[in-house]
Amino acid sequence: MTIKPLADRVLVLPAPAEEKTIGGIIIPDSAKEKPLKGQVIAIGNGTKDEEMVVKPGDTVLYGKYAGTEIELDGEKYLIMRQSDILAIL
Amino acid sequence: MTIKPLADRVLVLPAPAEEKTIGGIIIPDSAKEKPLKGQVIAIGNGTKDEEMVVKPGDTVLYGKYAGTEIELDGEKYLIMRQSDILAIL
Amino acid sequence: MTIKPLADRVLVLPAPAEEKTIGGIIIPDSAKEKPLKGQVIAIGNGTKDEEMVVKPGDTVLYGKYAGTEIELDGEKYLIMRQSDILAIL
Amino acid sequence: MTIKPLADRVLVLPAPAEEKTIGGIIIPDSAKEKPLKGQVIAIGNGTKDEEMVVKPGDTVLYGKYAGTEIELDGEKYLIMRQSDILAIL
Amino acid sequence: MTIKPLADRVLVLPAPAEEKTIGGIIIPDSAKEKPLKGQVIAIGNGTKDEEMVVKPGDTVLYGKYAGTEIELDGEKYLIMRQSDILAIL
Amino acid sequence: MTIKPLADRVLVLPAPAEEKTIGGIIIPDSAKEKPLKGQVIAIGNGTKDEEMVVKPGDTVLYGKYAGTEIELDGEKYLIMRQSDILAIL
Amino acid sequence: MTIKPLADRVLVLPAPAEEKTIGGIIIPDSAKEKPLKGQVIAIGNGTKDEEMVVKPGDTVLYGKYAGTEIELDGEKYLIMRQSDILAIL
Repeated sequence: MTIKPLADRVLVLPAPAEEKTIGGIIIPDSAKEKPLKGQVIAIGNGTKDEEMVVKPGDTVLYGKYAGTEIELDGEKYLIMRQSDILAIL
Repeated sequence: MTIKPLADRVLVLPAPAEEKTIGGIIIPDSAKEKPLKGQVIAIGNGTKDEEMVVKPGDTVLYGKYAGTEIELDGEKYLIMRQSDILAIL
Repeated sequence: MTIKPLADRVLVLPAPAEEKTIGGIIIPDSAKEKPLKGQVIAIGNGTKDEEMVVKPGDTVLYGKYAGTEIELDGEKYLIMRQSDILAIL
Repeated sequence: MTIKPLADRVLVLPAPAEEKTIGGIIIPDSAKEKPLKGQVIAIGNGTKDEEMVVKPGDTVLYGKYAGTEIELDGEKYLIMRQSDILAIL
Repeated sequence: MTIKPLADRVLVLPAPAEEKTIGGIIIPDSAKEKPLKGQVIAIGNGTKDEEMVVKPGDTVLYGKYAGTEIELDGEKYLIMRQSDILAIL
Repeated sequence: MTIKPLADRVLVLPAPAEEKTIGGIIIPDSAKEKPLKGQVIAIGNGTKDEEMVVKPGDTVLYGKYAGTEIELDGEKYLIMRQSDILAIL
Repeated sequence: MTIKPLADRVLVLPAPAEEKTIGGIIIPDSAKEKPLKGQVIAIGNGTKDEEMVVKPGDTVLYGKYAGTEIELDGEKYLIMRQSDILAIL
C-alpha cells in the first residue's frame, strides 16, 4: 500500500484494545475502550510551521478524538495531524 | 472544459461509491456512503502560505464534508482547499 | 457607472439563473436556484496579503452565500472578497 | 466641528434614504430602508496594517450593519472601520 | 491620585449625561443614556502593536460597552483599551 | 514560600474587601464585593510578546474574573496573566 | 518507562490529594478535591514559540482541567502543554 499523507499529517494504525478480564470474565468487544496507542505507518513532509518528528514505526499516544478514520485494503487507520500526537513511547 | 481554481483550491472529480453487496443483495444508491476518494482535475496557483503539492491526475483522499459541490457540463465536482486533502494514494 | 471596490473586493454581475424545464413545464422565477456564476465588473487594488488575480470581464464561480447584494442604476450586483471566488471559467 | 477618528476609522454622513413611491403613494419614513451610501467627513491616520485610501468628500458604499451611530451637533453620523467600506462611487 | 494604566489602556472620566427636558419636564437620572464622551485622565505606555495617540486631557468618544468601571476616591472611571476609543473631539 | 509563576503570570494577594456600613449596620461577609485590588507577590519571566512591567510589591487593579484561585500555606492567592492587570496604583 | 512528550508537552504525575480530617473523621476518597500539584516526569523539546522552562523533577501547579489523563504501567499521569502550568513550587 502506498499512501502519502499531506502536509503535517500522520497515518496511524491503532493498536488493538487490550482485553481486560475481571474475575475471569472477558469483557466483550463493544465494552472495550477506544485505543489511544498506535503505530505510525506513513508521514507527510511537514509544513513551514510544523517539522515532522515522528517516524514510521514509532509507537505513539494520541487523544481519544484525534484524526479521521479511513479504511484501506480492509484495515482501519487514522489520519491525524502531528500536533494531535501526545507522546512517543 | 477549462476551469482555473483560485489560490490554493483544487477541483476534484469524486470517485463513484463502491457498490457493496451483502449476501448477494445490492445496496441501492441512497444507502451508499459518500465517496471520500477522487481524482484531481485542476489546481490553483497556491498562495504565499500554501504551495501546491497535488497535481492533476492524482488520486486523493478527503474528509466527508470537504469542499463545495459544483456542476459543470452535467458532471458533479468538488472544489476544495488543498488543506482539505488528507493524503495522495 | 464608475465604482471602485475597496481592498481585495470584486464587483460581480450575477449570471441569470438558467431556466430548466421538466416535461415542457417552465419552472417559475421563485423556484430557480440562486446563480453561482457571474461576470467580474470591477476590482479593488488588492491588499498586502491578497494580490488580485481576477480581471474585469472574467466569468467566475462563487459560493451560494458569497458577497453583499447592492443595487446600482436598477441592476443587482454582488460585492465580494476575491477569496470568495472559487474558480475562473 | 473638529473630530479626529482614531486608527483606521472613518466618520461617514449617511445619505438620506431615497423616497420611493409606488403608484403615487409616498412610503412613510419608518418603512424606508436604512441608507447604505454616505459621504466621508473625516478619517483616521490608518494603522500599520491598514493604509487609508478613502478621503474626506468621497461617496462610499457600506454594509447595513457597519459602524457605530454617533450624534454630533444634532446630526447623526456613523463611525466605522475602513474595512467596512465596500466601494467608492 | 496616581494610577498607571497598563499596556495600551486608558483611564477615562465619563462626562455626565446631558440632561434633556421635554416640555420642561426633567427626565430623571435612571432614564439618562449612558455617557459616550469622556476625558482621558491617564494612559499606559502602549504596546509593540499599539502606539498611544490619545493624551491626558483629550475629550474622547467611545462605544457604549467599552471598558471596565472602576471606582477611585469615590469617583467612577472607565479603564479601556485605546482601540475602544472611536475618535478625539 | 517560594513560588515562581510561569511565563507572563503574576501571583497576587487580593486585598481584603472593604467593610461598608450603612447607618451603622455592618454588611456581613457574604454580601461583600469580591476584591479588585491586590498586591503582587511574585512574577514570571515574561514571554517574547509580553515583557513584565509589574514588580513584587506593586498594588494592582484587576478585573472581577481575572486569574485562578490557589491556596498556599492556608492563604488564598490569585495567579493571573499580566494582561489581566488593568493598572498599577 | 521511556516516554517522550511531543513539542511543548509535559508528562506530570499528579500528587495524591491531601487527606483532610474534620474532627477526626477522614473524608473518603470520592470527596477529595482533584489534585492541582504534581511532579514533572518528562518534557518535550519545545517549539519555536514555546521554550521549555520546566524540568523533570519540578513540582508544578496546574489548573483543574489541564491535560489529558493517560495510564502507563498501571499509574495515572497527565500530559499537558507547558502553557497549562501556572507555577513552579
